[in-house]
Amino acid sequence: MKPLSRKNFIKGVALGTISLPFVIRSCGADNFAQQSSSPNVITNKKYQWKMVTTWPPNFPVLGEGCNLFAEWVKEMSGGRLEIKVYGGGELVPPLQAFDAVRSGAADIGSGAAYYWAGKAPASQFFASVPFGMNAQQLNAWIISGGGIELWKELYGQYNLVPMLGGNTGVQMGGWFNKEINSIADLKGLKMRIPGLGGKVLEKAGGSPVLLAGGEIYTGLERGIIDATEWIGPYHDHKMGFYQIAKYYYSPGWHETGTALEFFMNKERYEKLPKDLQAILQTAAMRLNIWMLSEFEAKNTIYLAKLINEEKVDIRFYPEEVLTQLREFTEQSISDITSADPFSKKVYESYDKFRKQAGDWSKLTEKAFYNNIQI
Amino acid sequence: MKPLSRKNFIKGVALGTISLPFVIRSCGADNFAQQSSSPNVITNKKYQWKMVTTWPPNFPVLGEGCNLFAEWVKEMSGGRLEIKVYGGGELVPPLQAFDAVRSGAADIGSGAAYYWAGKAPASQFFASVPFGMNAQQLNAWIISGGGIELWKELYGQYNLVPMLGGNTGVQMGGWFNKEINSIADLKGLKMRIPGLGGKVLEKAGGSPVLLAGGEIYTGLERGIIDATEWIGPYHDHKMGFYQIAKYYYSPGWHETGTALEFFMNKERYEKLPKDLQAILQTAAMRLNIWMLSEFEAKNTIYLAKLINEEKVDIRFYPEEVLTQLREFTEQSISDITSADPFSKKVYESYDKFRKQAGDWSKLTEKAFYNNIQI
Repeated sequence: MKPLSRKNFIKGVALGTISLPFVIRSCGADNFAQQSSSPNVITNKKYQWKMVTTWPPNFPVLGEGCNLFAEWVKEMSGGRLEIKVYGGGELVPPLQAFDAVRSGAADIGSGAAYYWAGKAPASQFFASVPFGMNAQQLNAWIISGGGIELWKELYGQYNLVPMLGGNTGVQMGGWFNKEINSIADLKGLKMRIPGLGGKVLEKAGGSPVLLAGGEIYTGLERGIIDATEWIGPYHDHKMGFYQIAKYYYSPGWHETGTALEFFMNKERYEKLPKDLQAILQTAAMRLNIWMLSEFEAKNTIYLAKLINEEKVDIRFYPEEVLTQLREFTEQSISDITSADPFSKKVYESYDKFRKQAGDWSKLTEKAFYNNIQI
Repeated sequence: MKPLSRKNFIKGVALGTISLPFVIRSCGADNFAQQSSSPNVITNKKYQWKMVTTWPPNFPVLGEGCNLFAEWVKEMSGGRLEIKVYGGGELVPPLQAFDAVRSGAADIGSGAAYYWAGKAPASQFFASVPFGMNAQQLNAWIISGGGIELWKELYGQYNLVPMLGGNTGVQMGGWFNKEINSIADLKGLKMRIPGLGGKVLEKAGGSPVLLAGGEIYTGLERGIIDATEWIGPYHDHKMGFYQIAKYYYSPGWHETGTALEFFMNKERYEKLPKDLQAILQTAAMRLNIWMLSEFEAKNTIYLAKLINEEKVDIRFYPEEVLTQLREFTEQSISDITSADPFSKKVYESYDKFRKQAGDWSKLTEKAFYNNIQI
């Protein structure tokens, strides 16, 4: 991983601000080469795919992960499937990735399913909802608990095939310049917090503000916002928030283990030979475990840096505040599921799994963190 | 997954009791077929590998995972790498898998690194040590924290290449017929608990007993042992322990997230074309996340069954007991690291990562389980 300076890093995170014209191009051009008659021979047909992403080019962990994915696919296919990775804004603006792949302007996309909540409200359950499952539980629900079947059903309606493509783990709860001692402290607070987390803040009397990554630092510096969430110590350290915010709050109640995703154009995917389909599926699973590991390893190092070198003051949301935010979250989810039958169906599966996994975690992971890990 | 009756399940878990003669056979026979002159064409050379495992054939999750791994590899390679999976005892006895692959009698093996602690004491840090890291942390250390490089260095001395091949998650703490209220209750206790966990029990005055999976039920029934650990609700339910033991203890302090592994004959692996090497590495990572998800999903369901249908009495080890077991563990690990310099080197890396990951978890995963998950 190449180190990035704060300046270059911020330049890179102008999510949503760089917008190139949306160009429809013919993609996936197949250079047919040679086919053997042996039953064991693999067809030599070559595929060139375009990946559009919602991340700035080479963005640490997330964008790097897309590059790695493309490398693994190329390596495993002996060069028969090459994927060119475009950063957000390079081919289409980040939040047009979904439509670009649906329409066939690109072949595969990388994002997080909650970005598409405006089109498909149920999508957010496959990424992250406030007070939702963590990485281990969400993976288990999607891989072994019926989640992937529902996700395929949902994305199928959009001519897409979804795959898990990483997880951030539990995120941090944000940077503040005042203490949060009661829910009243959120009243009138202008905070950069997107998605459903923002809706929950609104119910608590706060004002969610939408700012692209590259605008957060100056927004906080100039008082356009009072607080911001981002990801975790590794990315937050690069953003330099410790220079302009006093308190770093835990935990990230709004993002408890956000799943990243790949979505592929359904027809293009189905036209691939079986071996290349399996290569894509398997590379995505490898990325899933690589990304969570990379987040865990980098965040442990950068948390120590933030505390020891930058003397950051770590705070915890009081339990009372979390309890009330959880209630607002339940209301927000109920708003979604009562308006959209497919969201209701997905949430029922999600919630059933979460409850059982919660019971199990009390005997295992929770007991581990409380009584085994020092 | 085919349902197994208790009888057939137990028949299958006679780990270490089935021993076929150790047959040296020529393996990895290469059927050279056809090679194209095109630079993009993949060589059509076909490889047939033998996998020896430490699990009974088709053993739930663990053995099934090996079958899946072989399927994925075959699919991705278009049939150019076929792996025949042998259950423990089918080709060599389970605990001879390591030597069988070293010598080239088999090409790849599946096990858990602590099985080889007698040969290579440092190996246990790549599987599980009592009061060690959990799955998320251990994956992060091995994948992104320097662990895999040390593991390769260690196994390289045995002509092997290691890969992560799954994780059980935090296990359960075992089945007892009396309550464990203080460390004195472990005195004189005959418990089926292998490896370093057994050594720790010994320091507490108990007697670790080695019994193969198929012998545990009758051993407990007839009083040959007073208590046993096994895996978690899914496997334990199939073993029927709830019929003959009163209390089911949490947490599995002796196995806090056991990593499974593949080990490949180094020369055979290095002779493979790069695309097949990448296919093996990637399939193993897919298995890693599949297995943890499968354990999580199945254990959540079977815990509910044990509690609701079998009325199992769940108990927690008192904190005082865990504190003392942790001290005995530290002594046991110190015995290992002071006798073996490579173990010392590995443990220093492991322990440094664990401490930093522990600090990070207090703001994230621990806070999640205590304040987010209901």
